[in-house]
Amino acid sequence: MKIPLRFVLVTILLAASAVRYEVASQQSKIRDYRAANEHRILEEFVTLLSIPNVASDHVNIRRNAALIIEMMRRRGLEPRLLEAGNSTVPPAIYGEWKVPGATRTIILYAHYDGQPTDPKQWVGTMPWQPTLRSASLEAGGTILSLPKSGEKIDPEWRLYARSASDDKAGVMAILTAVEALKAQGMSPTSNVKFFFEGEEEAGSSHLGNIIRGHQKLLEADAWLICDGPVHQSGLKQVVFGVRGDTNVDLTVYGARRPLHSGHYGNWSPNPALTLAKLLSSMKDEAGRVTIAGWYDDVAPLGETERRAIEEAPQYDNEIKTQLGLARTENAGKSLLELINEPSLNINGMSSGDVGALARNVIPTTASAVLDLRLVKGNDYQRQVDRLIAHIRKQGFHVIDHDPTDQERLTNPLIAKVVHREGGYNAERTRMDLPLALSVIAAVQATSAKPIVKLPTSGGSLPLSIITSNLRTVTMTVPIANYDNNQHAENENIRLQNLWDGIETMAALMTMR
Amino acid sequence: MKIPLRFVLVTILLAASAVRYEVASQQSKIRDYRAANEHRILEEFVTLLSIPNVASDHVNIRRNAALIIEMMRRRGLEPRLLEAGNSTVPPAIYGEWKVPGATRTIILYAHYDGQPTDPKQWVGTMPWQPTLRSASLEAGGTILSLPKSGEKIDPEWRLYARSASDDKAGVMAILTAVEALKAQGMSPTSNVKFFFEGEEEAGSSHLGNIIRGHQKLLEADAWLICDGPVHQSGLKQVVFGVRGDTNVDLTVYGARRPLHSGHYGNWSPNPALTLAKLLSSMKDEAGRVTIAGWYDDVAPLGETERRAIEEAPQYDNEIKTQLGLARTENAGKSLLELINEPSLNINGMSSGDVGALARNVIPTTASAVLDLRLVKGNDYQRQVDRLIAHIRKQGFHVIDHDPTDQERLTNPLIAKVVHREGGYNAERTRMDLPLALSVIAAVQATSAKPIVKLPTSGGSLPLSIITSNLRTVTMTVPIANYDNNQHAENENIRLQNLWDGIETMAALMTMR
Repeated sequence: MKIPLRFVLVTILLAASAVRYEVASQQSKIRDYRAANEHRILEEFVTLLSIPNVASDHVNIRRNAALIIEMMRRRGLEPRLLEAGNSTVPPAIYGEWKVPGATRTIILYAHYDGQPTDPKQWVGTMPWQPTLRSASLEAGGTILSLPKSGEKIDPEWRLYARSASDDKAGVMAILTAVEALKAQGMSPTSNVKFFFEGEEEAGSSHLGNIIRGHQKLLEADAWLICDGPVHQSGLKQVVFGVRGDTNVDLTVYGARRPLHSGHYGNWSPNPALTLAKLLSSMKDEAGRVTIAGWYDDVAPLGETERRAIEEAPQYDNEIKTQLGLARTENAGKSLLELINEPSLNINGMSSGDVGALARNVIPTTASAVLDLRLVKGNDYQRQVDRLIAHIRKQGFHVIDHDPTDQERLTNPLIAKVVHREGGYNAERTRMDLPLALSVIAAVQATSAKPIVKLPTSGGSLPLSIITSNLRTVTMTVPIANYDNNQHAENENIRLQNLWDGIETMAALMTMR
Repeated sequence: MKIPLRFVLVTILLAASAVRYEVASQQSKIRDYRAANEHRILEEFVTLLSIPNVASDHVNIRRNAALIIEMMRRRGLEPRLLEAGNSTVPPAIYGEWKVPGATRTIILYAHYDGQPTDPKQWVGTMPWQPTLRSASLEAGGTILSLPKSGEKIDPEWRLYARSASDDKAGVMAILTAVEALKAQGMSPTSNVKFFFEGEEEAGSSHLGNIIRGHQKLLEADAWLICDGPVHQSGLKQVVFGVRGDTNVDLTVYGARRPLHSGHYGNWSPNPALTLAKLLSSMKDEAGRVTIAGWYDDVAPLGETERRAIEEAPQYDNEIKTQLGLARTENAGKSLLELINEPSLNINGMSSGDVGALARNVIPTTASAVLDLRLVKGNDYQRQVDRLIAHIRKQGFHVIDHDPTDQERLTNPLIAKVVHREGGYNAERTRMDLPLALSVIAAVQATSAKPIVKLPTSGGSLPLSIITSNLRTVTMTVPIANYDNNQHAENENIRLQNLWDGIETMAALMTMR
């Protein structure tokens, strides 16, 4: 039987439009639910953000876990803690929503711990006292009290708190999407598992242990990672890779005791100067890393990846203006190009005191914390070895402890180099896998504008720990506003990003 | 009449020996008094050291002044406060002991304020909780309770507290010498005035005002400054000059807000790297200042001064061993040579955080505090101008405020340079003045070993403020142990140095 082409085309168009209609209708149901429940969602989020969540704060980190267990229990997700054995290690939290007949399993990942922060550096509010502002601090946002039931909530408001974006927003968006789906009588299209990590910001030192201890439980076709910011343009994005990351603590030494700068200055070595010279030697004037071999191992991008980068909005000039920058490092290379290269960042540098506490002394030590980002092809241990070789080449005796008297007297230059625990390599998933196409389609369906697809994020997640222990792939679907002050003081989320994130997470659970 | 030479010589020898005997007897009376009153002296000193004494702490600085007034009143020194007008400015304290028939007037100077300090950096004790230790911390000294009356006091014990050496030890030695002289029925040979400053460590910003406001009251043939440490060898010393001093705050800038080091690292400029490069440019690998003209204005030393330096004990190797140093800056030049040159020291340097608070961010700023020491010939404003010219030469737009948006967007490199108030120039008194010889003889008479005479100290005092406002000269007679951790945490005084200091101050008041 011959079916007329016209008939086929019309059928296909009708079917496609039905799918589009269904997706649009699903999305509007999620949106309706959120709109009717904004006050309650905000209240639940504020409660979650009120608990300090630095991974090393054993007591509070478990208070966070207990609250999330309770939130998941209310949603019928059968939550449980996954322990790494030791009670001082933050537990991961697992839950699931199984669907009869589903042939696919996805895990939605977020982390509930946050970066350490110095409360003194926050403006006007404290890290774990969630505070609503009428706009961002930079735009002159003023503090608002939490809206009472019935009062209008402006989606441009910002909620300020540690992890408001990174990454309790992920936990909140995922759990609110579940709640909305259930309230609207909708079901996922995949078996959905939930995994909330508790020490991502501390380097995920025990994630491998936890996964290996629950390998069957954590099997999935894909881990979908809800973490990080959307594109600087405001467009939603799906990111197929992350950079690796590792940290190094570096300390150099002056005299054994602090010395009067008048009586000993310019005779007794000043460790601040020693550190300044050493750090200066690691990068050239343009900010290019000068450590031998630093860029050698980089796996070149494929054609698909290069095209994705070319298609992504180029926002460098806008960001420079927003950040107040008249120059960038590695001048000539765009931000998107540079995140496909390994980096070396000085997170912090300290010697003696500055400001009101400064005294006329020669400090005894000078320290820096270095952040090494890695791309596909790099090995984190190899990069650290190169760093150490470079420090040796500058004439330093490299040790991993404070120097003994004997070491001090026999080595003109001493550097203590401590490679922090929890480093990991980069990870990248092919952008043309069927499941990758489904994720792209699901996220695209929630957005009127074209979404951005990137081979890698600038940020890091321990995704290589997941893929090296499980046969799965990872994709990252971030939701936070890009100017969220992630990892710094005054972290915040723009409410519209949280609202959009709920729809994105619901779309992933119900994707074709 | 012809007098036989033999007779003349015998007469001279007898006279000299009588003087020596008298001096020795005076000294032993002071020593006896101290030995009989050590517990009470220590108790009074502990009370004085218990009051926080940072010059900017208006409330506590006046509590110090009130206590010192009370101590001077008990000794009959007719004390009064000398104000600079503003009640937030620390007052100086004046007193006097006039002697009928005296033809000479000296002022004994000490300061009662101390350097700011971070209590967290003190080991085991707090800055204003004076604590006795059985030896120095470095030598494993353990904490002792204050000895009860009758219990033996070991002169090698150390008293730990902010200003235990610098410079409440000066106040205490001077006032205890007065008390001992009066108790033993002895009188000064000069009219003695007392001047205790309250903001020396804050740069003596108002000292000029105070002196100009009380010019007649503060007239004297010499100001004798009791501040700083004795020679590293333990020998007593008289120092005829001080270096000038001034401080500069330096800040460089990255993006307007802290940025995630993964998303923006190696694209957005890192201010810690910028500062490291800038500081590195100021000194060569050997620690020699590379700023154009830095050493140009130095007034060369005279023959007397050069000889005094040559005669002084050379202690560099011993100090290097004690400090755990395998190298020194400006290699080849001795410490005594180098303190006769202008210096540039990094007091402190800070960007972001290190240690447990470190986060994977690009900091927004990086700051340093610089200490510039000056020698005879230098002008402090001229040295700061050279520093600023150097910073400009490195490509920086130099401003004295945080940059505006417009400044940020038009200048690739911006440095905020703030020249702190209270700078002053170096000062040097001729070592062959009659009064200089009297001071040398008086101090030498209290010591069995040869004392050290130096043209300048490495440290600074605002002596040029004194000599530019009064027709007088200055000489410095320090008493503290050289390893007193002056200006740093764990400041302390060795009790024997305090005991010796009392005898030295009594000797100055009774000098021929």
